[in-house]
Amino acid sequence: MINYGDTICAPATSVGAGAISIIRMSGPDALRIADEVVRFTNGTVSSSEGYTLKFGRIPDVDEVLVSIFHAPRSYTGEDSVEISCHASSYIVSRILEMLIAAGARSAEPGEFTRRAFVNGKMDLAQAEAVADVIAAGSEAAHRVAFNQLRGKYSSELKALRDQLVQLASLMELELDFSEEEVEFADRSRLRSLLDETSAHVQRLCDSFRAGNAIKSGVPVAIVGAVNSGKSTLLNALLGEDRAIVSDIPGTTRDTVEDVLTLGGVQFRFIDTAGIREASDTIEKIGIERSLQSLSKAEVVLGVLDGSASPEEAGKAAALIKEHLSPAQTLILLFNKADLVSEVPSGFPACDLKISAKTGEGLAELKKQISAAYSVAAISADTTLVTNLRHFEALSHAKDDLSHVRAGLDLGTSSDLLAEDLRSAIRELGSIFGEIAPDEVLGSIFENFCIGK
Amino acid sequence: MINYGDTICAPATSVGAGAISIIRMSGPDALRIADEVVRFTNGTVSSSEGYTLKFGRIPDVDEVLVSIFHAPRSYTGEDSVEISCHASSYIVSRILEMLIAAGARSAEPGEFTRRAFVNGKMDLAQAEAVADVIAAGSEAAHRVAFNQLRGKYSSELKALRDQLVQLASLMELELDFSEEEVEFADRSRLRSLLDETSAHVQRLCDSFRAGNAIKSGVPVAIVGAVNSGKSTLLNALLGEDRAIVSDIPGTTRDTVEDVLTLGGVQFRFIDTAGIREASDTIEKIGIERSLQSLSKAEVVLGVLDGSASPEEAGKAAALIKEHLSPAQTLILLFNKADLVSEVPSGFPACDLKISAKTGEGLAELKKQISAAYSVAAISADTTLVTNLRHFEALSHAKDDLSHVRAGLDLGTSSDLLAEDLRSAIRELGSIFGEIAPDEVLGSIFENFCIGK
Repeated sequence: MINYGDTICAPATSVGAGAISIIRMSGPDALRIADEVVRFTNGTVSSSEGYTLKFGRIPDVDEVLVSIFHAPRSYTGEDSVEISCHASSYIVSRILEMLIAAGARSAEPGEFTRRAFVNGKMDLAQAEAVADVIAAGSEAAHRVAFNQLRGKYSSELKALRDQLVQLASLMELELDFSEEEVEFADRSRLRSLLDETSAHVQRLCDSFRAGNAIKSGVPVAIVGAVNSGKSTLLNALLGEDRAIVSDIPGTTRDTVEDVLTLGGVQFRFIDTAGIREASDTIEKIGIERSLQSLSKAEVVLGVLDGSASPEEAGKAAALIKEHLSPAQTLILLFNKADLVSEVPSGFPACDLKISAKTGEGLAELKKQISAAYSVAAISADTTLVTNLRHFEALSHAKDDLSHVRAGLDLGTSSDLLAEDLRSAIRELGSIFGEIAPDEVLGSIFENFCIGK
Repeated sequence: MINYGDTICAPATSVGAGAISIIRMSGPDALRIADEVVRFTNGTVSSSEGYTLKFGRIPDVDEVLVSIFHAPRSYTGEDSVEISCHASSYIVSRILEMLIAAGARSAEPGEFTRRAFVNGKMDLAQAEAVADVIAAGSEAAHRVAFNQLRGKYSSELKALRDQLVQLASLMELELDFSEEEVEFADRSRLRSLLDETSAHVQRLCDSFRAGNAIKSGVPVAIVGAVNSGKSTLLNALLGEDRAIVSDIPGTTRDTVEDVLTLGGVQFRFIDTAGIREASDTIEKIGIERSLQSLSKAEVVLGVLDGSASPEEAGKAAALIKEHLSPAQTLILLFNKADLVSEVPSGFPACDLKISAKTGEGLAELKKQISAAYSVAAISADTTLVTNLRHFEALSHAKDDLSHVRAGLDLGTSSDLLAEDLRSAIRELGSIFGEIAPDEVLGSIFENFCIGK
């Protein structure tokens, strides 16, 4: 266990409308500093057992409860305390000031979790999952992050790396004989092991699109002609007046984002400015944005104005389809069914007839959106990559492995192949932090909040 | 101790950008429910000692730390637990669902503190101070609230009530003899005791204005003619661009409020629309508001445009002074000292020459504002009334006592005087909750947040 010399402190709860705030302190002097700042009626924190609570007073500041943890049985693996006080920003900052005056220093973002990693309490992928678990806003996002926190994700990656290590040892064996110009007898076994591992890495890479959508919310773009009722639809789906709605065509200029949880998955709705020939600059920018958000969406709701002429509707539908990629799910909607009950002949074929205004068809629409990403699909056994750093490492490993594969076919010498293989092993190892240079750790933990 | 039959639960921390969230549960089944929802590797919460922590898992949801409290050694005086989990709104709501499924119910706002009061852990004034301590945003506000929480405030009021009880017993003594038409020998002692008590009640009533200003922030109005630089001054004082500033006269139409802590006291700044003859309706409303906020202010910053003619400035100064009450502190400012270095002759006499634009004179201005309400003045011994309910009770008691005083002079019979005296005793007792009907408790605690 690495022993950090200093003791860090930070608020662990956000100061808002709560009753209690928690201040965390960890490091070799944590217990001593707590005893210096808090007055107890009997005994001290230092002389108390771990996993006990002590009530004390900080004169003129507050009455507090102190949770006591002795190394290594704590979150960070170090001596730690959690000071529970009234949820006042004044009190929290006063207590922090006093802890710092007594020898602690302000923790950097993510420093508690970083210490937990460095002290071997969790691997790097687990440490990263702490932030994801906290940010998870839906059942699906939570399930993915929690599996990672519990170490299931790391286990799978470790097994994968072990397979590569096995491959490498086969390769090394061949290397040992290379001076004798003898090719390893069983290159076919090498090939099949390699193909199996590559397929697994590929599967993990492929899961990133879904994983990322589940983590950040599945992006749903609402697109359509000007005044086709996109904002009204967004408001009806979210049940609140989020976007500005007016009768003036082209009102919505900013893309408005809001989230809705359907069947345990979070969907991120993006309202867009109408797609049409724009006259002024601001509107042109809006339309540009519409097309951009369309390209980022997993699900596209194409809203056609039922009261428009079949030609106009046809043009709008064509414009939407033109900007669509094959991976995207399009749900084409015949809107304003309250005004026009019968679909006019010549009107583009729609998936659903709705009225954003009266709410007709919206329940069915939610079902169709939800069908695109359901929680059921994310069983406890499906590993989804949600972290960009992991995705990049996996992509590099995938490239390394395809070099090895190509080399095997071309009869490249084993020492060159072994080089690529070692690179792939390093890439996989970097995910759970087997090799983690300081700057990598820095960039990971600096995105955490203070107090984590 | 009253035993509530049911067990309540609620989040005790606000869900924001923290690392940890706390869920509180209190009531006869708190320990059993915790054991049902959380899996521990060994032992149970029910069989654990109070003031200890247990690590456990809630399958598929989170790993948690449970703090255990046995009645009566808990905040509420009941069996209680605090469940510490990752600060995710998803996790918090899942755990609450599970606690409720196992037999707890959602706590009403302030219900934990209400139970603490009913179970005799604190009196009513202390219970009310919990919310004030949490809301206190400055050293002064915290000091006042914390004194109340620690019970100093209640002690003073209890002593005051005891004096009245003593008075009443003197009165009753007289009543016993009233049939014999004998007037109590020592009415002068009654008078002096009464005067002393009345003066004390009066002093407490008078402290409400200062107490309330310290609790909510001392209101400072910035008033002046259109385009005299009021918004620029507000921004310069707050160090941020809070109000919209432009060169178009009459830009600021809404009153913008923000706070600044000077010398441990919070000052609440109110920017106002310019005072002048308004032409359109919206502006008239703005000017109306300016005059309203002026009347609510403790400190008024009168901003005069140094580049205006002495006549215009004179008119503006007169308009401000016209709307001022004697209790208010006016600081008259000669602004735009960067444009006009010499005060023109005929210009109204100002307290300070400043330039809101360059910052000249602002440090001195802050000193003058701060001098109006300094923390030093609020020593630990000064009791300030900050609560409207208390102020009203004290005002009623004051009226009752002046009835008694007048009755003594008029020779009113002792039984009528005793009636007024008993009313004053009830009023004082209501502050710390000696007599607290259910609807009074309801109205006090419903303003708390859930989880307190």
